[in-house]
Amino acid sequence: MKRNLLMLLGFVAALLFVALPAHAAVAKETAYIFNTLSFLMHGFLVMWMGAGFAMLEGGLVRSKNTSMQLLKNVAIYAVAGIMFYLVGFDLMFMNVNGGYFGTLSIWSAADAGRGNFSTGSDWFYQMVFVATAASIVSGTLAERIKLWPFIAFVVVLTAFIYPITGAWGWGGGWLSGLGFQDFAGSTLVHSVGGWAALSGAIILGPRIGKFAADGTVHPIPGANMPLATLGTFILWLGWFGFNGGSQAAMGSIADIDAIGTIYINTNLAAAAGVVTAMLLTQLLYKKVDLTMVLNGALAGLVAITAAPLTPSPGMALVIGAIGSILALFAVTVFDKLKIDDVVGALPVHLVAGIWGTLAVPLTDSGASFVSQLTGVVSIGAFVVGVSSIVWLILKYTVGIRVSEEEETIGLDKVELGLEAYPEFGRGSQNV
Amino acid sequence: MKRNLLMLLGFVAALLFVALPAHAAVAKETAYIFNTLSFLMHGFLVMWMGAGFAMLEGGLVRSKNTSMQLLKNVAIYAVAGIMFYLVGFDLMFMNVNGGYFGTLSIWSAADAGRGNFSTGSDWFYQMVFVATAASIVSGTLAERIKLWPFIAFVVVLTAFIYPITGAWGWGGGWLSGLGFQDFAGSTLVHSVGGWAALSGAIILGPRIGKFAADGTVHPIPGANMPLATLGTFILWLGWFGFNGGSQAAMGSIADIDAIGTIYINTNLAAAAGVVTAMLLTQLLYKKVDLTMVLNGALAGLVAITAAPLTPSPGMALVIGAIGSILALFAVTVFDKLKIDDVVGALPVHLVAGIWGTLAVPLTDSGASFVSQLTGVVSIGAFVVGVSSIVWLILKYTVGIRVSEEEETIGLDKVELGLEAYPEFGRGSQNV
Amino acid sequence: MKRNLLMLLGFVAALLFVALPAHAAVAKETAYIFNTLSFLMHGFLVMWMGAGFAMLEGGLVRSKNTSMQLLKNVAIYAVAGIMFYLVGFDLMFMNVNGGYFGTLSIWSAADAGRGNFSTGSDWFYQMVFVATAASIVSGTLAERIKLWPFIAFVVVLTAFIYPITGAWGWGGGWLSGLGFQDFAGSTLVHSVGGWAALSGAIILGPRIGKFAADGTVHPIPGANMPLATLGTFILWLGWFGFNGGSQAAMGSIADIDAIGTIYINTNLAAAAGVVTAMLLTQLLYKKVDLTMVLNGALAGLVAITAAPLTPSPGMALVIGAIGSILALFAVTVFDKLKIDDVVGALPVHLVAGIWGTLAVPLTDSGASFVSQLTGVVSIGAFVVGVSSIVWLILKYTVGIRVSEEEETIGLDKVELGLEAYPEFGRGSQNV
Repeated sequence: MKRNLLMLLGFVAALLFVALPAHAAVAKETAYIFNTLSFLMHGFLVMWMGAGFAMLEGGLVRSKNTSMQLLKNVAIYAVAGIMFYLVGFDLMFMNVNGGYFGTLSIWSAADAGRGNFSTGSDWFYQMVFVATAASIVSGTLAERIKLWPFIAFVVVLTAFIYPITGAWGWGGGWLSGLGFQDFAGSTLVHSVGGWAALSGAIILGPRIGKFAADGTVHPIPGANMPLATLGTFILWLGWFGFNGGSQAAMGSIADIDAIGTIYINTNLAAAAGVVTAMLLTQLLYKKVDLTMVLNGALAGLVAITAAPLTPSPGMALVIGAIGSILALFAVTVFDKLKIDDVVGALPVHLVAGIWGTLAVPLTDSGASFVSQLTGVVSIGAFVVGVSSIVWLILKYTVGIRVSEEEETIGLDKVELGLEAYPEFGRGSQNV
Repeated sequence: MKRNLLMLLGFVAALLFVALPAHAAVAKETAYIFNTLSFLMHGFLVMWMGAGFAMLEGGLVRSKNTSMQLLKNVAIYAVAGIMFYLVGFDLMFMNVNGGYFGTLSIWSAADAGRGNFSTGSDWFYQMVFVATAASIVSGTLAERIKLWPFIAFVVVLTAFIYPITGAWGWGGGWLSGLGFQDFAGSTLVHSVGGWAALSGAIILGPRIGKFAADGTVHPIPGANMPLATLGTFILWLGWFGFNGGSQAAMGSIADIDAIGTIYINTNLAAAAGVVTAMLLTQLLYKKVDLTMVLNGALAGLVAITAAPLTPSPGMALVIGAIGSILALFAVTVFDKLKIDDVVGALPVHLVAGIWGTLAVPLTDSGASFVSQLTGVVSIGAFVVGVSSIVWLILKYTVGIRVSEEEETIGLDKVELGLEAYPEFGRGSQNV
Repeated sequence: MKRNLLMLLGFVAALLFVALPAHAAVAKETAYIFNTLSFLMHGFLVMWMGAGFAMLEGGLVRSKNTSMQLLKNVAIYAVAGIMFYLVGFDLMFMNVNGGYFGTLSIWSAADAGRGNFSTGSDWFYQMVFVATAASIVSGTLAERIKLWPFIAFVVVLTAFIYPITGAWGWGGGWLSGLGFQDFAGSTLVHSVGGWAALSGAIILGPRIGKFAADGTVHPIPGANMPLATLGTFILWLGWFGFNGGSQAAMGSIADIDAIGTIYINTNLAAAAGVVTAMLLTQLLYKKVDLTMVLNGALAGLVAITAAPLTPSPGMALVIGAIGSILALFAVTVFDKLKIDDVVGALPVHLVAGIWGTLAVPLTDSGASFVSQLTGVVSIGAFVVGVSSIVWLILKYTVGIRVSEEEETIGLDKVELGLEAYPEFGRGSQNV
C-alpha cells in the first residue's frame, strides 16, 4: 500500500514537473513571439513612412528639385540605418542609467536582455524611427541646400543628436527619471527633427523669391499634389506602426487591447486634423486648401503621438483638432519671421509635437506639466544648440547653400544631372 | 494513511485548479490576441484602401479636377471615421436583435462583449469599411459636384445609411434572420456605395460634353494612368484585409486555414478579372484597354467578396471572370442610359457586387437564392430611396452642382484655388 | 482503501489525458497559427512588390510606353497567379524527391502535409514569388516588345521554367541534394528572371536610337522619377516579406529571432547599396545618379537574398555594397555588349543575384562554393536554353517586336489606344 502511494506521489510530482513548467514556458514563448511580431510588423509600417516622406516632399517641391528631394529621402533612410547600427542604438539604450547617453560599442544581437522579445526586432523598430526625424529636416530645407553637406548633417543627427535626446527619454536617462512622458515621440522624434530643421532654416535662409523686400510672402506651389496626397496616406498608415508598436508588447490581452485603443485614437486625431483644417481654411480663406488639409492630418497625428493610449476617443479628437489649428496658424507665424519651410514641416512636427507633449497631463494623471515642459525646453535647447553648431561649421567650411544661379536652374540638373519629369511640358524650365 | 490520501487528493485538486484553468486561460488569451491581431492587421490593410481610392480616382479624372478628387478622398476617410464613432457603430451593432437598427449612444470601448477579441480592434476594422462605401460615391460623381454638399451626403451615408443596412446584415438584423449571406460586403459595402452613387449620378446629371445630343458618347480619358494603376494595386492589397479579416477570428487552425483560402480565392478572382478584361477588350475593340483591365481586377474582387471562403479555386476564377465580363458590358449600358460614372464605379461596385451576392448559393449550400435576392433588392430600394431624398434636398437647398463655367475651368481652381500639377504643360488649361 | 486509490489513479490518469495532450495540442496549434500567419503577412508584402515593379518600370520608361508597362505588370501578376495554380505549384513541390520536377495535377488545398502550417498560406506565399521573376523580364524588354507574345512567354515562364528550377532547389530536387543554398531566391527567383530577360534582350535587340553605329550609348531617361522612387520603396518594403517569410516558420523563439535578424540584414544590405552607389557615382561621374542609387538599393537587396540570416550586420553591409558596385559596373558591360536593358534589371537581378549566391559560403559554413557555382551555372544554362527556344519560336511565328514606326509612336497608342498622361505637354509626342 505504501509503495502504491509513493508511486502515485511520484506520478503526480512528475506531472507537476512536466506539465506546469512546460505550460508556463509555452505561455512565455507565445508572448515572446507576439511581442517580437509587434516590433516587426509595426516596424515595417514605420519603414514605409520613409516612402511617405519621399512622396510628400517630392510632391511639394517644384519639379526642378523633385529628383533631389527623392534622393535625399532615400539617402536619409539608408544613412540613418547604418549610423544607428554603428553608433546610435548603443548611445541611446545601453547603460544609460539615468544619465545623458549610453556606452558606445558596435551593436550586435548579443546586446540582449531588454525584455521578453527579440533584441533584433527591437533594434529594427528603433532604427526605422530615426529616419523619420531626419526626413523632417529634408522637407524644411528643400530646394536650396547642397546634397553632401545635408548628408553630413544627417550623419550627425542620426548618430548623435537623436540618440542622445532619445537616451534622456526612452533610454532610461535623466528626463525619464523626472517623469517625462512621450509615448511614441511627439518630442523625442518629431520635435527633435523640427528643432534641427528650424536651426537649419534660419542659418540657410529662405529660397530666392519666397519673401519680397516689402514683406509680402510669395507662395511657391508644389508640382505634384497626387504625390503629396499619397505621401500623407502612407504616413497615416505608417503611424499605426509608429504609435501601436510603441506599446512595446503584444503578448497579453492588456497589451493588444492597448494597441487597439492606440489605433483608434491615432486615427481619430488625424481625422479631426483633416476636418478642422477643411473648416478653418474654408472660413478664413473661402477656399479649402489641400496642402493645409494634408498637413492638418499630419499635425493631428503628431499631436496624439505623445499619448495615444490614455485619451478617450473624444479627447483624441480634441487633441488632433488643436494640433491642426496650431499648425495652421504657425504657418503664418513662420512666414512673418521669414523662415522658409518648404513643406510645412515646422508647423506640423515642431509645433504640433510640442502641443502633444504638453497635452499629456490632460489625459494621463501620471504625467506632470512641469516634467513635460522640462522635456520640451531641454530637448529644444540641446537640439537647437548642437544643430546650429553643426550647421555653422558646415556653412563656413564646405558651404551649405547652392549658388543663386544653381538654385534658379534647380538642384536636379545641377547636382544630379537629370530631371524628374523630362518629358512634361515646362517641367524642365525654371519656375 | 487516510491523511496521506487526503493530502494527495488535495495535491491533485490544487494541480487541477492551477494547471487546467491557467492552461485554458492561456489558450483563450492566445486566441484573443490572434483574433484581435487579425482585426488590427487586416484593418490597416483596409485603411490603406483609402489611399487606393484616392489614387485610382485621382488618376482617372482630368488634371483640372485632380486635387479636388484627392481632397474628397482624404475627407471621406476622416468624416467616415468620426461619424462612425459618433453614430454608426452603435446604430449598426448595438442591440439590433433581428430589427432594423441598433440603439444610439456614443461608442466607447466599454461596448464590449461581442466576442473573444478586443472591441476596439473590431471597431477599428468596421470603421475602415465605411470609408470604402463612400469612396465609391466620390468616383462616380467626380468633376462636377460641389465639395460641401458632397461632404454633407457623406455624413448621412456614413452615419446612417451604411450603418442601417449594415445592421440588417452584419448587425444581426432582419436580413440575417432570413439567412442572407454576405461575407465581406459585396452588397453591404460595395452595392450600398454603388446605389448611393447611382442615385447621385442621375440627380446630378452627366458632365458637360460627355454625351452628345445625337447620343454618341465622348470618352474623357483620365490624366494619370500610373496613379490609377497604383490605386488598383493598393486596393488589391487592401482586399486581403477586407476579405481575410472578415473571417473575424484567427485564433484557431480552422480560422487561419480559412483566411489562407480566402486570400487565394480573392487573388484568383482578381487575376481572372484581369485576364478576362484583357482578352475581351482585345477581341471586342482590337486593343487592350488598361482602364477596363484595372476595373476588371476590381470587379473580380468585388464579386468574390460575398463568399471568398466557400468556392474552390476554380470557382473563384469563374466568379471573378463573370464579374469582369458583367462590369465590361455594364459600362455600355450606363453609357446608353446617359448615366455619367467618371471612374466606372457603378459597373465595378454595383453590378459586380450584385453578381457576387447572387452567386453565393452556387458555392455555399447554406445560402438561398431567394434570401440573397431579398437582400439585394431591399438594400437597393432603401439606399436608392434615402439617398435620392438626401440628394434632392441638397439639390433644392444649397445646390449640388457647380456652374457650367466653373465645371469648364475645373474644380481645383474654383473650389480649392490650386492646381494638381501647376508646372506640367497643359495641365492648367481646360481640356 | 483500494477503491479510493483506484479512484485517485483514475483521477490522475484523466488529468494526464485532459491536460497534457490538450496542452501539447495548444502549443502546436499556436505554432501552426504563427507559421501560417508568417506566410500570409509576408505574402501580402511580396504581393505588394507587384506594385513596386509596376511603378519602378512605369517610371523608368518614356511616357509613350508607360501605360503598356503598367498593363504588363498587372497582367504578369494575374497570369503568374493563375498558371502557378494550374501547373506551377505541383510541378515545383509535389513529389520531386531529388529529381527534376514534381508531378502535375491541379493544386488544391488538399495537397497538404508539407509542414506545421496551412498549405493554402504556403501556396499563396510561393505564388507571389513567381510574379517577381516575370516582372524582371518585363523591365528589360520594355518599349519594343509586343504585348501578347510577351504574355505568352510569361505563361511558359511561370508555368514551367520557374517551377522546374524551383523544384531543383526549394522543391527538394537534385540541386538541394548537392547542398545548394539559396534562402529566399537570389538565384531561384532573381537570376531566373534575369537569365530569361537576357535571352529575350539578345533575341529582341535594342531600342531604336539606344546604340549609335559608332558605338556611343544614347541614354534614354525615364519619364517619371517619383514613380521609380516609389517603386523602389515598395520593393524595399516587400523584401522584408520576401526574405523574412522565407524562414518558413514563426512559431518558436528561434524562428522569430531569425526573422528579426533577416529584417536587419536585409535593410542594412539595401542601405549599403544606396550609400555605395551615391559615393561611386559622385566619384566617377561627379554627379549622384538617382537611377543608379535606386538600383543600388535593389542590388543590395538581391545580393543578401541568398543568405539573409547567416551574415553579421557588418557582413550584410559588405554583401550589399559589393552587390551595388557590381551592378554599377555591369551597366557599362551590358552597354558595351549592346544589350539594351531598359530599367537596369540585368545588373540588379542577374549580376547581384549571382554574387549573392556565390557569397553564401562566406557566412554559411554549411554551403560550399562548388555547390553554389553548380546551381548558378546549371540554372543559368537551363533558363537561357529554354527561354531562347521559346523566344525564337515566338519570334519566327507571331513575331515579338513591334514595327519601327510603332516603336517610334509608342506602344501606348499603338497597342492600347490611350496615353498615360494625355494632358501633360509633350507627353503625347515622340521623344
